[in-house]
Amino acid sequence: MAKTKKQKLKITPLGGIGEVGKNLTAIEYGDDMIIVDCGLGFPDDDMLGIDLVIPDITYLEKNCEKIRAIFLTHGHEDHIGAIPYVLRSINVPIYGTRLTLGILAQKLEEHHLEKIAQLHCIKAGTVTKIGAFTLEAVRVNHSIADSVAYAITTPVGTVVFSGDFKIDITPIDGEMTDLTRFGELGKKGVLALFCESTNAERPGFTPSERIVGKSLDTIFANTSKRVTIATFSSNVHRVQQIINASEKFGRKIAITGRSMTSVVKAATALGYMHIPEGMLIGIEEMKRFRPDQITLITTGSQGEPMSALYRMTYSEHERVKVNLGHDDLVVISATPIPGNEKLVSGIINELLRKGVEVVYNQVADVHVSGHACQDEIKLLTALLKPRFFVPMHGEYKHLISNKALARQVGIPEDNILIPEIGKTIELDARSIKAGQSVPSGKVLVDGYGVGDVGSVVLRDRKHLAQDGLIVVVVAIDVEGGYVLSGPDIVSRGFVYVKESESLMESVKAAASNSIEKTLGSGNCDYNAIKSNLRDDLTKLLYNKTKRKPMILPIIMDV
Amino acid sequence: MAKTKKQKLKITPLGGIGEVGKNLTAIEYGDDMIIVDCGLGFPDDDMLGIDLVIPDITYLEKNCEKIRAIFLTHGHEDHIGAIPYVLRSINVPIYGTRLTLGILAQKLEEHHLEKIAQLHCIKAGTVTKIGAFTLEAVRVNHSIADSVAYAITTPVGTVVFSGDFKIDITPIDGEMTDLTRFGELGKKGVLALFCESTNAERPGFTPSERIVGKSLDTIFANTSKRVTIATFSSNVHRVQQIINASEKFGRKIAITGRSMTSVVKAATALGYMHIPEGMLIGIEEMKRFRPDQITLITTGSQGEPMSALYRMTYSEHERVKVNLGHDDLVVISATPIPGNEKLVSGIINELLRKGVEVVYNQVADVHVSGHACQDEIKLLTALLKPRFFVPMHGEYKHLISNKALARQVGIPEDNILIPEIGKTIELDARSIKAGQSVPSGKVLVDGYGVGDVGSVVLRDRKHLAQDGLIVVVVAIDVEGGYVLSGPDIVSRGFVYVKESESLMESVKAAASNSIEKTLGSGNCDYNAIKSNLRDDLTKLLYNKTKRKPMILPIIMDV
Repeated sequence: MAKTKKQKLKITPLGGIGEVGKNLTAIEYGDDMIIVDCGLGFPDDDMLGIDLVIPDITYLEKNCEKIRAIFLTHGHEDHIGAIPYVLRSINVPIYGTRLTLGILAQKLEEHHLEKIAQLHCIKAGTVTKIGAFTLEAVRVNHSIADSVAYAITTPVGTVVFSGDFKIDITPIDGEMTDLTRFGELGKKGVLALFCESTNAERPGFTPSERIVGKSLDTIFANTSKRVTIATFSSNVHRVQQIINASEKFGRKIAITGRSMTSVVKAATALGYMHIPEGMLIGIEEMKRFRPDQITLITTGSQGEPMSALYRMTYSEHERVKVNLGHDDLVVISATPIPGNEKLVSGIINELLRKGVEVVYNQVADVHVSGHACQDEIKLLTALLKPRFFVPMHGEYKHLISNKALARQVGIPEDNILIPEIGKTIELDARSIKAGQSVPSGKVLVDGYGVGDVGSVVLRDRKHLAQDGLIVVVVAIDVEGGYVLSGPDIVSRGFVYVKESESLMESVKAAASNSIEKTLGSGNCDYNAIKSNLRDDLTKLLYNKTKRKPMILPIIMDV
Repeated sequence: MAKTKKQKLKITPLGGIGEVGKNLTAIEYGDDMIIVDCGLGFPDDDMLGIDLVIPDITYLEKNCEKIRAIFLTHGHEDHIGAIPYVLRSINVPIYGTRLTLGILAQKLEEHHLEKIAQLHCIKAGTVTKIGAFTLEAVRVNHSIADSVAYAITTPVGTVVFSGDFKIDITPIDGEMTDLTRFGELGKKGVLALFCESTNAERPGFTPSERIVGKSLDTIFANTSKRVTIATFSSNVHRVQQIINASEKFGRKIAITGRSMTSVVKAATALGYMHIPEGMLIGIEEMKRFRPDQITLITTGSQGEPMSALYRMTYSEHERVKVNLGHDDLVVISATPIPGNEKLVSGIINELLRKGVEVVYNQVADVHVSGHACQDEIKLLTALLKPRFFVPMHGEYKHLISNKALARQVGIPEDNILIPEIGKTIELDARSIKAGQSVPSGKVLVDGYGVGDVGSVVLRDRKHLAQDGLIVVVVAIDVEGGYVLSGPDIVSRGFVYVKESESLMESVKAAASNSIEKTLGSGNCDYNAIKSNLRDDLTKLLYNKTKRKPMILPIIMDV
């Protein structure tokens, strides 16, 4: 009898590698598969009109019958946001901590999926046995409460997924990243650490969340203005600190912004946030208090154009309930995510222009990161002493920086693998290597459409955005092969037509010539007419304007 | 006889306030006007397809006969880039230092204006008397060589324009910002300082340019790879340091990138840069040397999609002369300008993915700013002891931070004025105040078009970029009032039509219905048909797709 070949543990990231967002990893042993995290990403600048991006899950759909469960590390969009889309084809039990599932539940309701989802609440320390896997949730600190890492024991060894983490030695809720447990796991032996890389370029230790509380105290102690604080709604501890500081200085709390309102509601209901009796007031009640008696908590710290802070900043008096002016101090308690820098500066500039006092991270410590800096990553690695190290969650440069950290802690070069999306990592007790490639990529969501906008559509949007378009319509007598009507020229996004009449006249004349020339050559093939129109007009317009609008010829049979 | 009212000095910024770029200030006394700097700006994210932005110069054109000269502080685009556009209506003498005019001359040649421009070369210390003004150029350090500030003596007092500056105590060319001269001016009495604000949020002193040289030495000493360094071509001192470090380590220099090639040529010809005999080699000669014998200097440090570094990073083998791989080390000697962060990260990630070693500012000191930090601004202010202080050049938040610095140095609140674009500042020996508003704003340049793309065109481009467009064409019999042909539906940038046939069918049916309904109601008014088509299709598509493409109805008379 042939010796049974020992199976390998297969770990396949379907997102979150070399990019920000859409974290999703499939873990497979024999006939069992579990998924860790299921997040969405935000569109790149060249994905015009796209709302969000989710991972291609063809590989999961193919292995649908093997999938036992989804495990979530925490409640941020880039770790849970794709669930409403994935759930439609893969409805398996979902495990997460109470706050994570609380945030997920709201999202599922918006998608009318709350009835079909199977949510299983766990907490730090919970051990769950599923198929070939035993998962232990381990407490970590992050910019959202109730975050966990997972230690996953498999037939070939224990692998640890850090999730997003930092080590906050003085956390707001008293629960520090469970270094002791990580140390115990390390003592027992860890096969591989899959470690987040977001801040792997930054030396030192990320400051404690508590720093922000101190800064808020200083701000409140020195102002008699109304204070408006914008932050991420999911940063429950940050919001709690705002509440605490406000209480200390005798201020009421008002809340605006859809997600802030709903997170505060969920977090207080679940016991993650505490607002003293009588402290919360409605927006409309604010006028009954002096400015120094009010703190307004709001969304919009990333300058998002639909957010409450954006509307308060840019809208006219009658459009918003809260108008900001000389009696206001606004705190932007966040740093811009890459790509949002200009939006956030825009808000700050506009508020200052209105006479509002603005406190932001360049001028005071009103934000700390939720991710581990270099020394924290090294500490976690040193405690776990993994045989293999796989940097995850971050742009490629962050993965490379993270690799250098693992080297410093003594992991040999050959035991570190830089993963790729859609490339399976094969592990056994003695080896790690890149295995097969599976279908993977980005699925673009635009409105209700999932995946119906691809490269052709995006290329057209880019072309239209760049120089606009010129439509040439002509009616042709099918039998006679002559022009019945037109050509008519319509343009959008090209030039302001009323001020460019002579240009538009010359376009019309050139279109006429082009059509007559093609027809005159005895060629009544519509494709030839269109292609000549495109060439002739593109040339004319480039010579006259140095622009290349899209030329859209339409021929009508009459 | 009535006492003659003493005239005021009028200073009008037409750009560079509350924004980055397009620095241009008009200074007026009686019948004399001069202009300090004449720069362009780069488009905001919402200015789709726009190449560059120049100041609205209506006010200058109106006062054309009063304008005596343009004075330039240094050769960066945001201080000289609008000259080719302004020169067409305002051709006055242009004063600048040798390098500034050298760079300007190249630009004028590209615009075929080199013959009409009147360039006057000055140097630090030169005193120029023009009309009511006496201008003295004072040496300052900046990220381009040969930069100056201007001390402008007028009938009401001396005003100083700092231009862009830093205080480099160990400058590469040995010429430090002339603190002594500023001190002397301060002793004699300065009415007002117009001071740049770019780094007004940053504490301390900007490090010396020399730091970068040290980092380069360390890099060269520790690698045997070919080294490619991307930086701003105009940073002549940076390029000189790259040459020096290469020489020290026995490397030849090759240069790629259009602007790098032309600046190096101009700077060596003018004596601002020195390349030892035999050290410069052509790109095609590189293969004759080992990797550790070559330094390649290139453009593209901002990730610009047309730059040499971008092409080397993303292009396929056969498309570029230089291919980067495992034998390469790339230094990005710059920090991203706001808005370029993702482009630069993209380059770094892609190079790392190719196995290239990349050194950038997060991992080594390979760049320093060219702008004064807080202590430098305070030092300049303290030396000049101006009665009035006007923060310039920067976003609004930078101006506000700069104001706080002036307060720290003892300038009273009432003596500081935050300027606005197009708002004249009136000065006399005892007072500063905001005066009249003059026409001002942004003129958008798109290809050859200057100012022909305005808000309507941009709104259309944005709409097209967001959700694409649907063209509905129908031929109608004018007399009978019935549909002769169509409606035909053509879409671009909306959905991938081949995969959305049923959706496009329903659009066609809805268009047909809409037209018939309007015609059936006895209304053959084309505007009514179009407006109903727009409404009906927008509603249908929003319900089905949650998108709002532009609907473009075209009706042909046959």
